[in-house]
Amino acid sequence: MSALKAFELGMQVAVFSDRDENEPVQFMTPNSTSSSFDDIEAMAEFAADCDVLTLENEFIDSEVLRQVQKISDTPIYPSPDSFSLIENKLIEKQTFEEAGIPVTPYKLVKNSSDLKNFGEKHGWPYLLKSSKGGYDGYGNETVSNIDEAESAFRNLGGEKGHDIVAEAFVDFTHELAVQVARNETGHVVYPCCETVQENHINVAVKSPAQVDKSVQDRAQQLAVAAAEAINGKGIFAFEFFLTKDGDVLLNESAPRPHNSGHYTIEGAIASQFENHVRAVCGLPLGSPELRKPSVVMINLLGSHQREAIIEHAEDAIAEPDGHLHSYGKLQSKPGRKMGHFTLLGEEMDLTFKRARELTRKIEI
Amino acid sequence: MSALKAFELGMQVAVFSDRDENEPVQFMTPNSTSSSFDDIEAMAEFAADCDVLTLENEFIDSEVLRQVQKISDTPIYPSPDSFSLIENKLIEKQTFEEAGIPVTPYKLVKNSSDLKNFGEKHGWPYLLKSSKGGYDGYGNETVSNIDEAESAFRNLGGEKGHDIVAEAFVDFTHELAVQVARNETGHVVYPCCETVQENHINVAVKSPAQVDKSVQDRAQQLAVAAAEAINGKGIFAFEFFLTKDGDVLLNESAPRPHNSGHYTIEGAIASQFENHVRAVCGLPLGSPELRKPSVVMINLLGSHQREAIIEHAEDAIAEPDGHLHSYGKLQSKPGRKMGHFTLLGEEMDLTFKRARELTRKIEI
Repeated sequence: MSALKAFELGMQVAVFSDRDENEPVQFMTPNSTSSSFDDIEAMAEFAADCDVLTLENEFIDSEVLRQVQKISDTPIYPSPDSFSLIENKLIEKQTFEEAGIPVTPYKLVKNSSDLKNFGEKHGWPYLLKSSKGGYDGYGNETVSNIDEAESAFRNLGGEKGHDIVAEAFVDFTHELAVQVARNETGHVVYPCCETVQENHINVAVKSPAQVDKSVQDRAQQLAVAAAEAINGKGIFAFEFFLTKDGDVLLNESAPRPHNSGHYTIEGAIASQFENHVRAVCGLPLGSPELRKPSVVMINLLGSHQREAIIEHAEDAIAEPDGHLHSYGKLQSKPGRKMGHFTLLGEEMDLTFKRARELTRKIEI
Repeated sequence: MSALKAFELGMQVAVFSDRDENEPVQFMTPNSTSSSFDDIEAMAEFAADCDVLTLENEFIDSEVLRQVQKISDTPIYPSPDSFSLIENKLIEKQTFEEAGIPVTPYKLVKNSSDLKNFGEKHGWPYLLKSSKGGYDGYGNETVSNIDEAESAFRNLGGEKGHDIVAEAFVDFTHELAVQVARNETGHVVYPCCETVQENHINVAVKSPAQVDKSVQDRAQQLAVAAAEAINGKGIFAFEFFLTKDGDVLLNESAPRPHNSGHYTIEGAIASQFENHVRAVCGLPLGSPELRKPSVVMINLLGSHQREAIIEHAEDAIAEPDGHLHSYGKLQSKPGRKMGHFTLLGEEMDLTFKRARELTRKIEI
């Protein structure tokens, strides 16, 4: 979706993917290259034809990016240095902690005794996370006792030397998210929004979050501090827990346009995608102000294992300030993010209820 | 710009152009075909791979479209029948007149005596238009006396048998435009906007038009009637003169997204491009309501003959509810439409003044 905003600014877009030519963005450009994300030579050759490179995922090793940048002499934003600070969950947490940003309790666990001690100190169940490569719950396991912990440690590759981080469950009332765009012209911070999770998948977003103004302000301040801590250039999403005690703890960060910010396409004056493009191109940033008092985004998840077809979406499409997006993925499967629906309204509860009603019957 | 909205709905886009592979939209798809606009075979082959075809210009003969549709069995919207009613300025005016829509005084002129009579009846100067193929003043000539009229008649191909239409100059106070989207689900009509012309080129648009509500309503009613008169499916722009006597006369129509509606990208809830895509795909139409009370669009015209580069646009880009669009054309030349800038505001005069200020220094 960043490509669409680049087009509006008159830019040409080329895509390097690790998949064959059936990814949605590959239908948006005559310039697609496919190879592995560790094929430095292919990436550097691709980069040499570009003015600037950016990423829509965090799966490429920062060292690979560093070499691609060096060989091609094409700048990459966010920079390989920024990526190196967040690609590893352990380093990420340490970096943010050092910048004074409260994070969820965590520890690098190396053996059975570490697993046991963490459970005793922070309580069971807790989370085990592979320090690299997690995404929407993959690469994470919840463990309720030492047997489960040992098994998960093995599954996540702990015995093969992968860094495994134990993370305490936090007793939270809300999950919050804030997008920050940042470059040499300054930064803009989007409203503090609230993500609604089911089965570790973000099913909906409400913006602004239905929490006290002071909590919103706190999350926005921490998000800006976090973007600064990694010297970020581009758009970043920071996810927070609001604990029962009223603390705001940084949970995860994403160095790219993020699902929690999709609502900004119509919900804000300048979307996260537009500000991502502006940020990496060194342009002044656009306003993150909301267009209406309440914005709701509902993720449209695959309901069938089949060739993707959107059914029963007529009412959602017809809704006056509703906006249906399909990502153009060719294959659907249950739970896969296939699109989203954004609804702008005056009042949050009514807007949320209406958005759920309109999307409940959609099948993909 | 329709392609960008098709992408948001998960569609794939293929492009048939009569130009080589350097047109902006050709940078947005891996599927480009180039051939002549009268190469029925090539077009039909292209069409056969598509679910639906639409057009972003009116340069293809309706008879060609009819055959392409027949051979490929792919529907074309607006339909060849709709195109046949507006591709010829004479038939267009007759069609609208028959539907009770007031048009500017006109006459098919066949010889010197017709040219003279028209001038005597409606006054000099008047306009001579080639009945096919006009665009932004090309194909039109203003004639002030019988000698100029005879010379223009020859230049426009009158002696070669082209239909030439004489059109009276109308004493108008405003040029108005209204976009209508229409398909089998119904129609939506955008606000009546006002176009600001310099040297027969539309340099700016104000929406809503700064005229009485009754005039706006009248233009909207006539635009809907005009879309019905040609049984239009898609988006249509209708341009009107508001005469000094307060009459609203239909001047021109465009069976496609039109420059006068570019302001709707950010200015309206659903843009003309989105509603064009929805209309031709048979989807319910989106709301044409304005996002703010005053919307201004300034065309960014080429200022130099050179490879296109946008200079001194930082302030326009940085303006909070300002939106700069570049069309990605590779070559600039003086007067060529290279992009536009839209500004949303509360009050029209201030918004227009600010938009002009911000764009005056831009060089392309």
